[in-house]
Amino acid sequence: MRVGVLGCGNVGAALVSMLLGDAAGIEARSGVRLALAGVAVADPSRSRPGVPATLLTGDAKALVEDPGIDVVVELIGGLEPAGTLVRSALGAGKPVVTANKELLAAEGASLSELASRSGVALLYEAAVAGAIPIIRPLRESLAGEQVRRVMGIVNGTTNFVLSRMTESALGYAEALAEAQRLGYAERDPSADVEGHDAAAKAAILASLAFRCEVRAEDVPREGISSVSPVDIAFATQLGYVVKLLAVAERLGETDAGAAGDGVPEISVRVHPAMLPATHPLASVRGAFNAVFVEGASAGELMLYGRGAGGVPTASAVLGDLIDAAHHLETGALLRPVPRAPVGMHPADELRCAWYLNIDVLDRPGVLAAVAGVFGEHAVSIRSMEQLGMGDEARLVFLTHVARQGDVTATLHGLRSLEVVEHIGGVLRVLGVEEDR
Amino acid sequence: MRVGVLGCGNVGAALVSMLLGDAAGIEARSGVRLALAGVAVADPSRSRPGVPATLLTGDAKALVEDPGIDVVVELIGGLEPAGTLVRSALGAGKPVVTANKELLAAEGASLSELASRSGVALLYEAAVAGAIPIIRPLRESLAGEQVRRVMGIVNGTTNFVLSRMTESALGYAEALAEAQRLGYAERDPSADVEGHDAAAKAAILASLAFRCEVRAEDVPREGISSVSPVDIAFATQLGYVVKLLAVAERLGETDAGAAGDGVPEISVRVHPAMLPATHPLASVRGAFNAVFVEGASAGELMLYGRGAGGVPTASAVLGDLIDAAHHLETGALLRPVPRAPVGMHPADELRCAWYLNIDVLDRPGVLAAVAGVFGEHAVSIRSMEQLGMGDEARLVFLTHVARQGDVTATLHGLRSLEVVEHIGGVLRVLGVEEDR
Repeated sequence: MRVGVLGCGNVGAALVSMLLGDAAGIEARSGVRLALAGVAVADPSRSRPGVPATLLTGDAKALVEDPGIDVVVELIGGLEPAGTLVRSALGAGKPVVTANKELLAAEGASLSELASRSGVALLYEAAVAGAIPIIRPLRESLAGEQVRRVMGIVNGTTNFVLSRMTESALGYAEALAEAQRLGYAERDPSADVEGHDAAAKAAILASLAFRCEVRAEDVPREGISSVSPVDIAFATQLGYVVKLLAVAERLGETDAGAAGDGVPEISVRVHPAMLPATHPLASVRGAFNAVFVEGASAGELMLYGRGAGGVPTASAVLGDLIDAAHHLETGALLRPVPRAPVGMHPADELRCAWYLNIDVLDRPGVLAAVAGVFGEHAVSIRSMEQLGMGDEARLVFLTHVARQGDVTATLHGLRSLEVVEHIGGVLRVLGVEEDR
Repeated sequence: MRVGVLGCGNVGAALVSMLLGDAAGIEARSGVRLALAGVAVADPSRSRPGVPATLLTGDAKALVEDPGIDVVVELIGGLEPAGTLVRSALGAGKPVVTANKELLAAEGASLSELASRSGVALLYEAAVAGAIPIIRPLRESLAGEQVRRVMGIVNGTTNFVLSRMTESALGYAEALAEAQRLGYAERDPSADVEGHDAAAKAAILASLAFRCEVRAEDVPREGISSVSPVDIAFATQLGYVVKLLAVAERLGETDAGAAGDGVPEISVRVHPAMLPATHPLASVRGAFNAVFVEGASAGELMLYGRGAGGVPTASAVLGDLIDAAHHLETGALLRPVPRAPVGMHPADELRCAWYLNIDVLDRPGVLAAVAGVFGEHAVSIRSMEQLGMGDEARLVFLTHVARQGDVTATLHGLRSLEVVEHIGGVLRVLGVEEDR
């Protein structure tokens, strides 16, 4: 099987090194012989240690179209030219392995259809959570399962930053600067800290878990830049940890229309949340990733491992590549994932517990006024702590499970109270008993 | 696809209920239509709620041979008659899905070969760790990976007992009685507490991870009945937890013989061990299972979930059944797992840190004598705690990484010291820094 690799960044270089350095070992373990036939890079004149210059080319299009290439690995990233190259490969009946989350979160369903029509595999284990096997378990192991919820820590940068804020009481800016120094965060960290990366992965996970088509643009997201050391300290004190989560849930069905049955209703989103310290996801620290899956029959599953890095991610690409080569060799078809329409659950109707941190003037009657606003909007308070701070007091609330719309209305009401100085952290609390 | 199910215990009944109750949902999610065509049970005259009597038969052999049956699910367990029925189905070109760990740990390699020769799938995700996808990730996702170590909590009964001993300071007998009361342990608990069940699963995991053939009888095992509350308390105090682990490691190669290259050397075993409380496996409590995999490229992975129970285990069977039906429908071949010879690493040469708990007479010079025995056998002490108990003292040692043979010799030497009253707990310490 002759492999053409598009892109030679961290992941590409690691894959090339595996294919050149351990082809015999890979064949012994997998039964599949993979020969690296070409690597397309932006600047083929730049020498790359360990890669023979004869393998390098600047013409990705020609490499994809080369009849001597059997399987294409796309590691360029981004929508274009990656999309055109992937479509061209699939259209020519060549299986494609990709780690391109942006592309899959934008047009994964249509690319999968194109692959099906061409009778070849489109595999993308490496696009979500690096080395962790999550795409294949969702697609195959859980093929018959009614998945209820997928909740993942799928971005190593934000998990590193939040872990450092928790474990060393660093501020957000300090922790981010450390992540940048260590190479865990980009110079421009916005794709990670604002949740864009996690939203693309959430879209991919939701599309597989619920057999539908969700795009990154359908995924509302909140990043971590507003999470303060104060919130983290309260979370710790209350027995929680703060994590940036990609969440995809099935929440019943839409109302049946005139045509008959309703369709499944789902919610897909990215936001920071508090999780009980005893939750399996709570101990996922630093640059590790994990995806927690709740199925109607399988119960709770968690898949954990290295979510990024050239070598771990290349290991997931290699697993797919072996599979793609086998499919091509035997003419076997990858089982297509059936996709059906779904409805998006209205955000206001989402239900979970909340953490709210509110600075108020320290006057008699203030707590009654604040509690009154909660009551007015049917948000039930589970616990409250009051801390004096001179003329002000800080009120920290945990609510029972409440409608998001009611919490939004409560916040609106609180802001209009004269005694409320400032509304600090507002975080969802997930994974608690009453939420399950 | 017409499915014949052999056996209708917990897992069989759950599967039958899924196939009868949710066939349309399964088809919508997987694209595969499964029709339950027959269920072989020991006593077909006994009525089973939810199972039409017309589906029940007492003749498993006839069901397997029935030309109307396309796929066979074997949930009888044990070597015979299950083995004969599985061989008969495979020989007749029918894919087989089984959860039978004893059978696979005894003759998995030859059954897989038979399946390959017949061009059909033999799938057994449910044989290890219930609902957790571990077989498919090892077989497919990690097909190219050089796996270094697999370490699993694969027996829910012993994990429940050890968790109860840790969390509520129960004795072994008490915790076991509670497990029996709750249905987590059999009336005769020996298959679980003596490590037979875990050894079969270790053999299956090792065979896949290292692409070789390991049988249950090749797996040395130690159970948990000798783990005392004293050891558990010390473990907690020292920052560890005690778990029954199935361990499979690759440890270099055997010496090259006259014929040329050596073969990989592995160690496969089951024993209780102390793990640092921060290790991902440490927080796997109660009836949950988890398998930790270390790969040369993938790094550390952990797969976690419900390791037993009818419904979760049936969910793993269903995933395999969909796959088997798809393979049969499309004529696709399951990629066979190449298997090559391996050598077994001599137990005496295994290296890890150890915990030892020794009761001695409280006399001057005793510690020097005891430490002398350690030194004589080149076992280096990392830490020691001494507790006075009247005329006696208890010495608790943690060693640095040491050869198992040297530790055995040390224990032998200690037993011959007059001042040593009793050697209590002796536990391996895994997952520590120097061990990685």
